[in-house]
Amino acid sequence: MRADIIARQVRVMQAEGLDAIVASSPENFAYVTGFVVPSQPLLRHRHAMAIVTADGGAQLFGVDMEETTIRRQAPETPLRVWGEFTDDAMAVLASQLTGMGLAAGKIGMEMDYLPAGDFARLQGFLPGARFVAVEQRLARLRQLKTPDEIARLRSLSRIADQAITDAFASVQAGSSEMDIAAALTRGVYSLGATHFKLMIVATGERSELPNVGPSERRLQRKDVCRVEIFAVKDGYQAGVCRTAVVQEAPEHAEEIWAKLVECKYQLLDMIKPGASSRRIYEAFLAKMAELKLPPISFVGHGIGLHLHEDPYLGMYSDTPLEAGMVLGIEPLVYRTGYGYGMQNKDMVLVTDTGAELLSDYANTDQLLLVR
Amino acid sequence: MRADIIARQVRVMQAEGLDAIVASSPENFAYVTGFVVPSQPLLRHRHAMAIVTADGGAQLFGVDMEETTIRRQAPETPLRVWGEFTDDAMAVLASQLTGMGLAAGKIGMEMDYLPAGDFARLQGFLPGARFVAVEQRLARLRQLKTPDEIARLRSLSRIADQAITDAFASVQAGSSEMDIAAALTRGVYSLGATHFKLMIVATGERSELPNVGPSERRLQRKDVCRVEIFAVKDGYQAGVCRTAVVQEAPEHAEEIWAKLVECKYQLLDMIKPGASSRRIYEAFLAKMAELKLPPISFVGHGIGLHLHEDPYLGMYSDTPLEAGMVLGIEPLVYRTGYGYGMQNKDMVLVTDTGAELLSDYANTDQLLLVR
Repeated sequence: MRADIIARQVRVMQAEGLDAIVASSPENFAYVTGFVVPSQPLLRHRHAMAIVTADGGAQLFGVDMEETTIRRQAPETPLRVWGEFTDDAMAVLASQLTGMGLAAGKIGMEMDYLPAGDFARLQGFLPGARFVAVEQRLARLRQLKTPDEIARLRSLSRIADQAITDAFASVQAGSSEMDIAAALTRGVYSLGATHFKLMIVATGERSELPNVGPSERRLQRKDVCRVEIFAVKDGYQAGVCRTAVVQEAPEHAEEIWAKLVECKYQLLDMIKPGASSRRIYEAFLAKMAELKLPPISFVGHGIGLHLHEDPYLGMYSDTPLEAGMVLGIEPLVYRTGYGYGMQNKDMVLVTDTGAELLSDYANTDQLLLVR
Repeated sequence: MRADIIARQVRVMQAEGLDAIVASSPENFAYVTGFVVPSQPLLRHRHAMAIVTADGGAQLFGVDMEETTIRRQAPETPLRVWGEFTDDAMAVLASQLTGMGLAAGKIGMEMDYLPAGDFARLQGFLPGARFVAVEQRLARLRQLKTPDEIARLRSLSRIADQAITDAFASVQAGSSEMDIAAALTRGVYSLGATHFKLMIVATGERSELPNVGPSERRLQRKDVCRVEIFAVKDGYQAGVCRTAVVQEAPEHAEEIWAKLVECKYQLLDMIKPGASSRRIYEAFLAKMAELKLPPISFVGHGIGLHLHEDPYLGMYSDTPLEAGMVLGIEPLVYRTGYGYGMQNKDMVLVTDTGAELLSDYANTDQLLLVR
């Protein structure tokens, strides 16, 4: 259990007059506890929750199939177990909340996660309780990363970055996208991630496609290769995308890449505490127009325990950046007009004075090279 | 869009007096449409829904970021697009349902998926509508696979089975678990899956651990290797687990394996239309007791678009099996008492007359062998 996160939640409860916060989504459970219940993200009925009270107390709630895992990870924290096949999880949760003195309490819930049917039954079991949506407050807390979280995201950013770089180095003209994928997945595990998400391996004409996995396509001289992966551990995720050319850059590739690199440095220049997320996006739009490249609808977003978090660097919101935020930034062109697409996606920390590149393994000032 | 699935939903609506069913979970969206909206399972606020009405009409509802994907997959079906950053998705859904004449309708919803906050807003926008939980009816429909679904699950079962078998054949004593993982992930993609889940690579003493990914551990003579993977395509998933020994079986391994094989054949003998799911589990328990192996709490479960579906072959429910069901069955022993664990997980179709093994690539009558 994370004392610093519990303290943050206690401050939210004081500000909102809450008696407890029940974290029920995989990301907010992991946020409080520091670990993921393995089957929770895969089987949504397997509810796992972390209940924090206004006095800083904490209890856990979990399914019988995961009891040993939860106890091993949080041996000191009281755990109420519900039976997957024998209990109504909400009846057990209501009983646990009653035992914690919360039957008539004001309880913050994740109303964007708890299914409507479960919530209705919970209300039925606890008619005296008042439930209040707390997901936006929790999302806001998660925006400002702790030193431990920053260390995790830095490590995962480097893992993703190095795994892609090493995968490019392990193949050559004649290899297939499957060879890249095999080296890449091996790389993320071997460098310390326990899981990955969203692997994109798109080479040659396939580099124009936004979201494709590897195929049997073989690498040819002058191919552009767009490769992305999210390295995942303990619920934290870091996504990196890199672009390489096989042996030699095709026509215009180096000049387009130089423009994307300009965009990256402009983003890194502008990202600092107090900067407006919308102004950063507008400057990116202006830069893309000046470079005669087609714009995208946002050029960055918060990331951490959830794949996309606020703030977005886009046109629809305006948030002042703060030290401790971690952003994914991704200047990209899917359709350059020359039969290939390019993308450079980095992980960036907002520091007290500016931006720190977390995905700092590859030198992306030039296009990466495949033999 | 799948006419046969829509017809099934129409029959449910007739039986329940419903005017429409709104499928909102990734699995039920894919069930009606035949495809997955890529970011829906990753970002739960990116609602995608398939609305089927009692007259057999269908409309889709999706987020702007996925508009082109949805239109490409279902060009003939009316699509209402909501803006991720500009709309309340529920306001747009309410307007769409109103336009379909459902403002005062009786509408089946997935109350175990739609978040409580979304549901409350939807009710606010459509005060005249009546919403009814329909998730159990949809889950029940999904239990009986269509010929197309069976073909998909047969193909994915063989992919998972062959990928594991080929991965074992590609390594030898001295290779690491990472080598198995790299061959395995390459295999599932290369054989035609677009994604995988739940890779377990557990060798030697690690074979006792239920749920672990690959490590740098190197294979040694007499290691037991437990390897599992779920091959995934278009939302369908097939899980297979195989056990191999390196060069030579350690003491007692062959006799324990023979017992697990006995369990498998007993399961295949008993699985047929009309068989009681609980009696199959009880026979498994009796067999495990006779073989002096520790039992597990269920030995099989339905599978398809969701990782675990009813019916469970376990102690807490009793369902007569029906032709068209697809089950994962998994006789296993995590702790044999000799420092290793073993597992044999297969995919099985309930046919008109009995059981058909879908994961039929490897011959598991004996332990697989790593050089």
